[in-house]
Amino acid sequence: MAKEITPRSEDYSQWYNDIVRKSGLADHSAVRGCMVIKPHGFAIWESMQRQLDQMFKDTGHVNAYFPLFIPKSFLSREAQHVEGFAKECAVVTHHRLMNAPDGSGVVVDPDSRLEEELIVRPTSETIIWNTYKDWIQSYRDLPLLINQWANVVRWEMRTRLFLRTAEFLWQEGHTAHATREEAIEETRMILDLYATFAEEWMAMPVIKGVKTPNERFAGAEDTYTIEALMQDGKALQSGTSHFLGQNFARAFDVTFLNKENQQEHVWATSWGVSTRLMGGLVMTHSDDDGLVIPPRLAPWQVVIVPIPKPAPEINDAAQKLIRELRDRQIRVHYDNDETKRPGFKFAEHELRGTPVRIAIGLRDLEQGQVEIARRDTREKTMVPADGAAGYIQKLLEDIQARLLESARKYRDDMTFHADTWEEFERILDDKGGFVYAHWDGTTETELAIKEKTKATIRCIPLDNPPEQGKCILTGRPSSQRVLFARAY
Amino acid sequence: MAKEITPRSEDYSQWYNDIVRKSGLADHSAVRGCMVIKPHGFAIWESMQRQLDQMFKDTGHVNAYFPLFIPKSFLSREAQHVEGFAKECAVVTHHRLMNAPDGSGVVVDPDSRLEEELIVRPTSETIIWNTYKDWIQSYRDLPLLINQWANVVRWEMRTRLFLRTAEFLWQEGHTAHATREEAIEETRMILDLYATFAEEWMAMPVIKGVKTPNERFAGAEDTYTIEALMQDGKALQSGTSHFLGQNFARAFDVTFLNKENQQEHVWATSWGVSTRLMGGLVMTHSDDDGLVIPPRLAPWQVVIVPIPKPAPEINDAAQKLIRELRDRQIRVHYDNDETKRPGFKFAEHELRGTPVRIAIGLRDLEQGQVEIARRDTREKTMVPADGAAGYIQKLLEDIQARLLESARKYRDDMTFHADTWEEFERILDDKGGFVYAHWDGTTETELAIKEKTKATIRCIPLDNPPEQGKCILTGRPSSQRVLFARAY
Repeated sequence: MAKEITPRSEDYSQWYNDIVRKSGLADHSAVRGCMVIKPHGFAIWESMQRQLDQMFKDTGHVNAYFPLFIPKSFLSREAQHVEGFAKECAVVTHHRLMNAPDGSGVVVDPDSRLEEELIVRPTSETIIWNTYKDWIQSYRDLPLLINQWANVVRWEMRTRLFLRTAEFLWQEGHTAHATREEAIEETRMILDLYATFAEEWMAMPVIKGVKTPNERFAGAEDTYTIEALMQDGKALQSGTSHFLGQNFARAFDVTFLNKENQQEHVWATSWGVSTRLMGGLVMTHSDDDGLVIPPRLAPWQVVIVPIPKPAPEINDAAQKLIRELRDRQIRVHYDNDETKRPGFKFAEHELRGTPVRIAIGLRDLEQGQVEIARRDTREKTMVPADGAAGYIQKLLEDIQARLLESARKYRDDMTFHADTWEEFERILDDKGGFVYAHWDGTTETELAIKEKTKATIRCIPLDNPPEQGKCILTGRPSSQRVLFARAY
Repeated sequence: MAKEITPRSEDYSQWYNDIVRKSGLADHSAVRGCMVIKPHGFAIWESMQRQLDQMFKDTGHVNAYFPLFIPKSFLSREAQHVEGFAKECAVVTHHRLMNAPDGSGVVVDPDSRLEEELIVRPTSETIIWNTYKDWIQSYRDLPLLINQWANVVRWEMRTRLFLRTAEFLWQEGHTAHATREEAIEETRMILDLYATFAEEWMAMPVIKGVKTPNERFAGAEDTYTIEALMQDGKALQSGTSHFLGQNFARAFDVTFLNKENQQEHVWATSWGVSTRLMGGLVMTHSDDDGLVIPPRLAPWQVVIVPIPKPAPEINDAAQKLIRELRDRQIRVHYDNDETKRPGFKFAEHELRGTPVRIAIGLRDLEQGQVEIARRDTREKTMVPADGAAGYIQKLLEDIQARLLESARKYRDDMTFHADTWEEFERILDDKGGFVYAHWDGTTETELAIKEKTKATIRCIPLDNPPEQGKCILTGRPSSQRVLFARAY
């Protein structure tokens, strides 16, 4: 099975598609640009959702649900917002089908035209702020800390499974605050939460930073981002948190009576991560034999394979081990399908990325041992059956830690500093990766660099040290380096 | 607060709306027929989802996600299916907006017309069976047991919060089987699962039955249903499970190689429950003072109110009790907001349906007691602070059981047998409720009865005893009674 995967060295893009499709994560659908998330992929997404949802709730947020449709006029209220999304909107214009008068089939009933077209939400700021108008009167109603898990649609012309699809799943937080400072604090707190999730759960190291004005969310005063580096040296924007100022409050006339008894516009944030994270997960850890899933997100963390097939003694030993593992909250699956041989099962679980595989054979059992193989390094170890559960618990923690360490080492090895234009271009062409370089701070220069190299400013890192230098393109003075990369 | 609720005796429909809106469950949105599910409502829906999802997984199902959009031609493949949904479809026809040439605002870009219109899914049989074609080759690929949590859109002309909205949230199971018997078994197993959930979690008694051909799902061979009775004597169809035969497999050409090495069409089921259950929950238990939530689904099962306001000794006692309750997996909230008085808090928690309220005051504490009030019966009891957690755990179980018992008693009291047309009409007009009566088995008679009385056949109950009789309308012979009611 694993042999069907195109090696990264041969065709990285094809490798990615092979992994996503053959390991059972997702597939293309009959609808242009829309994907089917298959059970294995959805189970990993559910692991992500569960953890993120808990982190949102632990920081005081609650979930709610707002309409799928946005009246066209709402989208137009915030000028930059509509500018940002107008070109990729799925528009609902009618509400009924009918039999064609000529009997040729089913057609749209022209009499069912809507008075105002509805846009399938590309993001929900407008419909939500229109609702918040009714929910917020006084400072006592603030802060309002709401999150929504939803599907959204952006009509992308070039799509890639998980990374860029017309419909995707995400969460979008929309919070309302009494002061600018409190809203900025929320924006940054969520950025930290996203970074913690990416590193501790996905084992995907990220750089936290702020976007340049040119790369800001349409309607934001500031967009914060976490940026990860994929195995082909390209960056992946993995989550964004926006400080929206009072823009949406003004557009939808949302004011509150402050403690000084004055009417004031409300301060806003919004923030989201999406099924794009699934693409990041794949491209951070997987290899030419298939998926590698960090144990904390793996639907099954451990699979037990009887060698060569189920037998009473093997089943007993497996059931005992399963009980011990479940007592430790470890998700374990006994693959006792008699129609498949061990070699087939090994390849399948390798392809699907199960972190730990245990082989239980009669001969090993007689010696009181089982064979434990880890997916990430392929190392196999014989371990006493007694105490195997404790060994595995420790092993899962080791794998989680090593995956992060290994991804961080790759990222660090692929992070460069460029001081001249030639150096900048050579690094991008020869190696890719993150490049720290000076920039004169203008959108004009930013766009010129993108035009020449396809590299964009991923962010101005939050922990940037001040450093005097000269812009790599224009030579104009700069007070800090910014982070460049070619990106998804 | 509670006083703002219209009493049921005055205007039942207004009472329902008041409860839903004022207790924080949901509200109308700016988009025709679409609702906003507010945080309190969404938290209850999350409780429902969590339990149902666990029940689906325990019975071998996995989750996946299929596209929001369905190509128009797909919907047309199954003749009855398109017939059933054509009149209520949201149709996407364009994929871009543009600035109006006359500067009047943003309009649909006429050049962005789609080659084939897309329907926002009203249900997903067609897109899913088109996908299953690629997933099923042999009997080894069966059964395929997949569920999806999703939003769907049916363009209803008359909408009511939760009960009938243009967009709603639901789960839809879609399973594929090698034999007719296995598919029917799945259909019935899910019906039992739904009934168990309704009774044990929602404390909402239901009657399990099969729909008449006239009331079947569009494209099904048989539709099974659970029917509940609301406090106004009207029935609520609360969940359906469909045996689809080979209809969708034929429409999308999904065959498999059976064990005898022959190609055969796959057998299908589909089943769903939706946010409509929220309406059922409200109309089964709530009263003129607000929501009543069964403890198993309540976001907060217990609220603690300091009397008259937080103080060190009260806080200590509250924290101790909170720890003890959490050790018992009880969801508890300490309402220590100093800006609100106890009376306001009492009314608010009554309105929002929190099952148990604990009042902790200094004087009671000195005597080692706290006051415990239950939402359902309004009974108050002084209980020793030591051991209060155990008392409350037991109390929550009692409340859950009493709510079911009470709803069952109401349902039984409102269930009648009619043997003549006059009796049938009089019961429906005077009392409403469920009416068991003989029917001659024809759609013609079923429709005539509906025309005359607005009552429909809710189902042919599964546990029906055979009984010879005469149709209440036509006098023709009948071998069993069926269940009539006016319905939502």
